Amino acid sequence: MFPGRPNGSVSERIADAISSLLLPIVDNILDLHSFGPKWDCAPSIITHPIADVDLMTKTLRISEAFKLPVTLLWEHNDTAGMFDTWVHSLGKIFICTEFGGGEAHAEALTIYEAGVRNGLIALGLVEGKTEYPMFRQQKSGRTLETNPSDQLKSPAPGIFEPRCSVMDEVKQGDLIGILHPMDSLSAGSIDIRAPTTSVVFAIRSAGCVQGNEEVAMLARPLAP
Amino acid sequence: MFPGRPNGSVSERIADAISSLLLPIVDNILDLHSFGPKWDCAPSIITHPIADVDLMTKTLRISEAFKLPVTLLWEHNDTAGMFDTWVHSLGKIFICTEFGGGEAHAEALTIYEAGVRNGLIALGLVEGKTEYPMFRQQKSGRTLETNPSDQLKSPAPGIFEPRCSVMDEVKQGDLIGILHPMDSLSAGSIDIRAPTTSVVFAIRSAGCVQGNEEVAMLARPLAP
Repeated sequence: MFPGRPNGSVSERIADAISSLLLPIVDNILDLHSFGPKWDCAPSIITHPIADVDLMTKTLRISEAFKLPVTLLWEHNDTAGMFDTWVHSLGKIFICTEFGGGEAHAEALTIYEAGVRNGLIALGLVEGKTEYPMFRQQKSGRTLETNPSDQLKSPAPGIFEPRCSVMDEVKQGDLIGILHPMDSLSAGSIDIRAPTTSVVFAIRSAGCVQGNEEVAMLARPLAP
Repeated sequence: MFPGRPNGSVSERIADAISSLLLPIVDNILDLHSFGPKWDCAPSIITHPIADVDLMTKTLRISEAFKLPVTLLWEHNDTAGMFDTWVHSLGKIFICTEFGGGEAHAEALTIYEAGVRNGLIALGLVEGKTEYPMFRQQKSGRTLETNPSDQLKSPAPGIFEPRCSVMDEVKQGDLIGILHPMDSLSAGSIDIRAPTTSVVFAIRSAGCVQGNEEVAMLARPLAP
């Protein structure tokens, strides 16, 4: 979609206006959105690997300054035309937040406010003192990485039953969830287990899933 | 809908089958469901006032034996034909669970399993030891009551911002949430405050609401 087209579809025209009017006058882009319903996930900043080493280092440093529970380096296959890759091609900082699952409660809103304020302080745009927001009674602030093999998928269509929680530390073989097939009364339930020592970054809430649909996203501490 | 009709709509026929085939052979009815999406609420057992004092006492006693975070006596205007009022008219125990908001995560599932097992132990149907499940790092188990004036509504259409969490203790005048009107750019935000000292039983998650739509449900310890 990005950089858009001035005479394209409505979405392409919006992308064009952002690219041609807003991007030239800003240094840092904050893309504040949430992870999506039917999931539970830690409030986090997500960034993808950036080929420009200097920009990658700067992006991670500013991301961590938000002091959100997780800063996540997410390795995945790039799609051409994304907002973030376009901003990176201009050599600018792109910070993308994932503010929890589909429902935002008071705790999450408090974390977002503190996180954005922390980020603006780190960028020198506002004055103030950095706060470390609590997430589910814990002070966290971890930098993790995840890659496509950390995305666990449902082995069959059915009802997914989550058996671990966001930020749980799991070892190889630990139970992540159970898939109860619904297309056959004789099919037994299928355990979904951790392939390796990991932290649970996000997990589907209980409910129906298709076969091969994502049900959990694991991660591990970012290698130095 | 209850007791149903054998030659009525599909729903009426199901109600009739439950009334004529299942109810005569059971003593206690467990109605396990959840509170609904767009809300956060404590896993709980909800019962309405029952005119038969003996049945009311028995129902509360068995409800509390589930050891869910909350047992709630909810005074509201009865609707004719509900499953619970029909069961009560037969002099049987009706236990209705509200298993949290629209999304069920691992913590909630653990609470439900323990709660149902505790209830079956109390009814003498299975053997075992009562467990006290934790809810958000706290061991709770409170009996509360709520009435129609505890249901706080949005003062206008707009975006509701929750500013307190489930199980928070609030005093008269404490901020429950903020309504940001969306139909006028000049309209200021409106604070929604606690009318009296209460416990937050359920609260809407952040998002759009209509005018006069419920955004929070308060409660207080059940008067002896």
